[in-house]
Order: sequence, then C-alpha cells, then structure tokens
Amino acid sequence: MRTQVAIIGGGPSGLLLAQLLHTRGIDSVVLERRSRDYVLSRIRAGVLETGMVDLMTRAGVGERMQREGFIHDGTQFAYDGQMFRIDFADLIGKTVMVYGQTEVTRDLYDAREAAGGVVLHDCSGVTPHDLDTDAPFVTFLRDGAVHRLDCDFVAGCDGFHGPSRQAIPTDVRREYERTYPFGWLGILSETPPVDDELIYANSDRGFALCSMRNANLSRYYIQCDLSDSPDDWTDDAFWDELRRRIPEDAADSLVTGPSIEKSIAPLRSFVCEPMRWGRLFLAGDAAHIVPPTGAKGLNTAASDIHYLFDGFDRHYNQGDAEGLDRYSERALARIWKTQRFSWWMTSQLHRFPDQSAFDLKMQQAELAFLRDNTAAQKALAEAYTGMPY
Amino acid sequence: MRTQVAIIGGGPSGLLLAQLLHTRGIDSVVLERRSRDYVLSRIRAGVLETGMVDLMTRAGVGERMQREGFIHDGTQFAYDGQMFRIDFADLIGKTVMVYGQTEVTRDLYDAREAAGGVVLHDCSGVTPHDLDTDAPFVTFLRDGAVHRLDCDFVAGCDGFHGPSRQAIPTDVRREYERTYPFGWLGILSETPPVDDELIYANSDRGFALCSMRNANLSRYYIQCDLSDSPDDWTDDAFWDELRRRIPEDAADSLVTGPSIEKSIAPLRSFVCEPMRWGRLFLAGDAAHIVPPTGAKGLNTAASDIHYLFDGFDRHYNQGDAEGLDRYSERALARIWKTQRFSWWMTSQLHRFPDQSAFDLKMQQAELAFLRDNTAAQKALAEAYTGMPY
Repeated sequence: MRTQVAIIGGGPSGLLLAQLLHTRGIDSVVLERRSRDYVLSRIRAGVLETGMVDLMTRAGVGERMQREGFIHDGTQFAYDGQMFRIDFADLIGKTVMVYGQTEVTRDLYDAREAAGGVVLHDCSGVTPHDLDTDAPFVTFLRDGAVHRLDCDFVAGCDGFHGPSRQAIPTDVRREYERTYPFGWLGILSETPPVDDELIYANSDRGFALCSMRNANLSRYYIQCDLSDSPDDWTDDAFWDELRRRIPEDAADSLVTGPSIEKSIAPLRSFVCEPMRWGRLFLAGDAAHIVPPTGAKGLNTAASDIHYLFDGFDRHYNQGDAEGLDRYSERALARIWKTQRFSWWMTSQLHRFPDQSAFDLKMQQAELAFLRDNTAAQKALAEAYTGMPY
Repeated sequence: MRTQVAIIGGGPSGLLLAQLLHTRGIDSVVLERRSRDYVLSRIRAGVLETGMVDLMTRAGVGERMQREGFIHDGTQFAYDGQMFRIDFADLIGKTVMVYGQTEVTRDLYDAREAAGGVVLHDCSGVTPHDLDTDAPFVTFLRDGAVHRLDCDFVAGCDGFHGPSRQAIPTDVRREYERTYPFGWLGILSETPPVDDELIYANSDRGFALCSMRNANLSRYYIQCDLSDSPDDWTDDAFWDELRRRIPEDAADSLVTGPSIEKSIAPLRSFVCEPMRWGRLFLAGDAAHIVPPTGAKGLNTAASDIHYLFDGFDRHYNQGDAEGLDRYSERALARIWKTQRFSWWMTSQLHRFPDQSAFDLKMQQAELAFLRDNTAAQKALAEAYTGMPY
C-alpha cells in the first residue's frame, strides 16, 4: 500500500487533516486502532474557537455544525457569591461555537466516506519506520495480517498514548509536564442547561463548570479528589455538590435528572518539543495536553492541523518546503500561548491543597481585576475565542 | 496637647496626609520615632503613579517634582535574550514619574515647615490609646518627658513594624502574608543609567532591574539568596552578575562605577484587614507590604492617603461620615488589585527554587503573550501607571 501522507490516529485531528488534504488533491490513509463506534462513543469537549470553525468550513464539513451548533458570544465567571460576564462579541467582535467533539468526528467520518477516503479501523501494533529517511513507512496488524503502508510523510495524530511521539528518540525529545492535584468529575444529563452560556465557578468548595451540548443535553463538572471513583458519587450527591458551588440564582434554577454518563478525568499540562522529527509530524494530543479548563484540547489540535495542512499544501502544490520546515516552531509558538491560558484558567478557578489565605486572595483579586478591567477582559476574550493562527 | 488628627509616622504617608489635611483647614500633629536626617537617608523606590503625582500637586508640593522628575512613558521587559517595550502613553495615554521617595519626603518636610505644621521627631514609645472610644489619645516619650496628644482620630502611618497595627485586637485583625524565597541586592551608583527607561529582566540566572534616580544616579538590583550579605558582593561581582542577566546590548553599554549604597531587601506580600478599627486608620506599610517588583510600595500608601484624606475632609467640612466609614473597604479594594499586580510581576520575573521546566515555560509564555497581545499590554499599562482611585 502506498499513500502520500500516512495519518496515524482517526480522531478529529487525523480526520480533519485527511479531509483538508483531500481538498487540495493530496492523498492520505488514516490508521485507527479502535472501531468507529468506539471513537464516536468518546465524550469530549464541545467549545470550538473561530479558527476551528473556519477550518471545518474550509474542509467542507461545516454545514451541520453551522445549522445545529450554538453560537456563544460570551461566558460567565462566578466567585465569592457573585457572577460576571465576559462579552466576547462586544469586546472583540468574536464568538465561539458550542458543538460536541463527537459531532465533529461524525461529520468528518461522513465526509471522508463520501469522498472515498481511506480510514482503516481496528489497526493494532501501528508502528512508524525509517522516519529519518526519505522513504518512511508504517506497519500494522489488521484482520490477522501484517500490512505495510509506504508514504512520503507520517502525521502522528494518535493521542497522548500513541506510538508516534515515542518514535522520536529520547535524546531529541524534550517533555514538559505538570499534573494537578485534583480531577474533574463530569456528568452528562438530558436536562436543559442551567444557563444559555457556560459558567466557570470558583467556590470555597472547589471548581464547578456548567456546560452543555444542546438545549436538552447538559454537561456539568465539579473538581474532585484524584482518589475518588465515579461510583463514589450518586447523581444526587453530584447535584447537591454542584448546587453548593454555583451562585444561588443558578442553583435555584438548576434542573436535575439522571446522568447518562459519569466519569472522572485527571488534569494535566504537557508539551513535547519538537513536534517534527524527520518525516514525522506530531499533532494534537500526541504532542500536547491541556487541562480542560477553557476547552482548548480540540482547538489546539485544530491549530496544529492548520499549520500542518499549510505545510503539506505548500510542499505538494507549490514545491515550497518552508511550511513543513517551520511547522514545529509555528505550532509550538501558539501551543505555548494556549498552554498559558489553560494553566491560568486552571490556577485561578480551582482549590489547591497547599493554598494559603494569601493565595486565595490572589485568586479573588485576579478575578476582580478581570471583572473590572476592560483590557484584561479583551485579553481573555482573545485567548478564549482563539488567537489568530 | 490636642489636635484633630494624630498622625503616627513621619514618612511620606504621614507627611502627605498632614499636608493634604492642612489644605482643607484640618489640624494634625505628626509623631516620628526617628530623626529627620535618618528618615531622609532611607533609600526607597522612585516610580510614582499618576495618582500619586496628582496628590503631590494637590498638596501643593509638586513643583520641584514637576521640574526635576523624569516622565517615563514606557518600560522595558527582557527575557530569553530579547527585549520588548510597553508604551504606556501610546496604549492608554498615561505615564509615570521617576522621582525618588527621598525627594518626595524632603519636599513634604519643607512644605510642612513652611506651613508651620507640627512634626515631632525622636518620639519613642509612641502608643495609641482608647481607640474604640470617642476620645482617643497618643502617648510618647520625647526629650525625657512623657507627652499626651489628645485627638479626634489616629492615622497609623508608622510602617510594618510600628505600633498602630498591633493596637487592633488580634481577634479583629486578619493578616495575609507571603514571603518569597529570595531577596534583592541593590546598589546606587553615580553613573548614567543604562537605558532611558526601566528594564525588568527575567534571566536564567535570576531577576535583574535597571532603574535610576536621575541622569547621573543609577539604581540596579539583582535577585539574590536570602542568606547573602551585601559584604559577600564586591562592586565588581555585582556588575559582572548584572551584565549576565540583562540583554547583550544593555550589558555592552552599561557604565559601572563605585556603589554609594549597597543593601539586601527581602520580598514580602502582606495585607492586614480591616484597615480601620474604631478611631484608628492604618495607611501604607502599616497595613500592607508589596514586593518591590513594579514599584508599588509608595504608590499604595498614596492611594490609602487619598481615601483617608477624602474621609477626613468629608467628616470635618461636610459632616459626612461615609468617607471614614467606608475607608477600609475602599482602600482594600484597590490594595488587593495592586497586591495582585506586584505578586504577578514578582512571579513572572524571578527564578524560584522549586520551578519545574514547565513552570519556566509558563513564565516565558506569559511574557510572550504580553509582548504580542495589545490588550494584555493595556492591562499591564493600567496597573503599572496606577488604577484610578
């Protein structure tokens, strides 16, 4: 088998790249370890930056998103019993789109299928080879047989635990990491969201987030101990705790119901440098992880795909190597800024075990400054809706 | 002896308050523990916010400052071998004034003397009494005799170690504190400053600050170990270390010379709440300390004096209690924002012993965001030049 770009990983990054390459006549094969149903069952974030929305449209898969997604032109912050709003539209003329990652992935699958794109599921033992030569290839096991995919380039879109990053020699690779001493307990419930917009709440009892997928599908999170298990939390216990962490008005109008999904996620900041080695290019979670506060996971993947697509397009259609040569540098410059934003949001909104009374006052002062200072609100709005690519 | 407002402490806060009260016909007596020469020998910061400049002018002591002070309409930040400028004037139409605290104090002494104001030096054992009654008084020892000063109110402008804050019962007083695991080694030298503006430098070897008093008086600082003594540092060792921490261009044009003062200061964030108890009002270092990064010490004192003067003026001249009743709340609201700024500047520019590689990347990303984002620059410019009172 031969293709121009071998894409390891059939999540939204890999599929979006494949679909974008297709619009410019570049051939790819996507290799995914799991089944399509499994990929579509993963619950992930659902707030898309302007850049990601544009990229979906450019890839020809924006139609349903534009029809069914919800434009949010602001968000709410709560702390110390009060709530204030950051109005993105008013401040900087930009918005975000609420549209679940599951829906993004579904649209991309459909588009790939309609275009006759090759997406191979259930590939195990996927291994890239000869990445530092002009003739890389990928081997994998599927339907009991070993297959070999020859290619010009390999795009590693295979997430934090995938083989791509591990293929970069350890003496080349530098990894930066921070883990946080708490997790997020999240539930999905078929109830109307408590607010039209997201509420990020800093409370004495820890962080809470009121989010949503649509008018009858709510997503709520509360900061929890890393040692907690979802089984420790009945639905009632979750709702009670959520109510205690959000402003009284919101608590009073909260509609509860049975959870249809309940899980705990750890929080991590992680970046691998460089994002290119030879003919391998990392994108998305394969290269970096953000804590979920501020919903940047999928959006940082999209920004990588933007730069990587640009690199491949210039390489194949203009004979220009600069896009690929500068991929790592360009992608990382934006990644670090987004890491900063996600780290800042996480640091300002959660309770940490070692926080002093002074530290808590600094959180409140930071939020008060944001509430009162238009320039600080603009800076936040620019980071939240997504910095320019 | 009797006065309307007994002012404990003859530093710039106490003197400025006395002078402002005088402009509105309110009588005061200032009690200072040290001699006038001692007070004038203390080396302190020299960057005045717009609000402090206005207050000096309003107190009738702005003339020499306007003539001899230097308007700075921007400042420089250096990190990772590069330097960028925040242009306050261009961003928000505001500036700061470089004029040493020693000069401020001297002008205030002169003005008090010209107006026949009472400033008593060498007062020991200053003790406020009956602060929770309608008839407070202050006792002190001077020239071998015990004196009693009866008054309507006591203004505690006596610094971090003064008796005023201690007079607030411990069950009323709440103190917030953070100490930093490093100090600032500072020297004063009769050399032309390396730059027209201040340079705040984040370097691999620790923080450095290039500051100045005038065209031939430079003030430089480097982050040092708390266990260091000024005697450990020869002038040559200081200059060598400073050169390594500032950008190459600046290092090349640095003019060195013998130090005329060399000292180490610890860094501390501290706030006492409330700032009023009965008829006692705390102002300046008596109630709060900022780390020196960003030069807010004198400026936070000035903002307290603004609110306190307003309170006394309304009390005596309009029979309105609200200014004094809301003093603590109004002063603290602004203090916490300034604490946030000073803590942020300190956190982003210094090396901390427990910083991980990820933490260092967050510092760089924070500075890169500031370099590239106009809204973030405006937010910094507003905090640096001083938020409105």
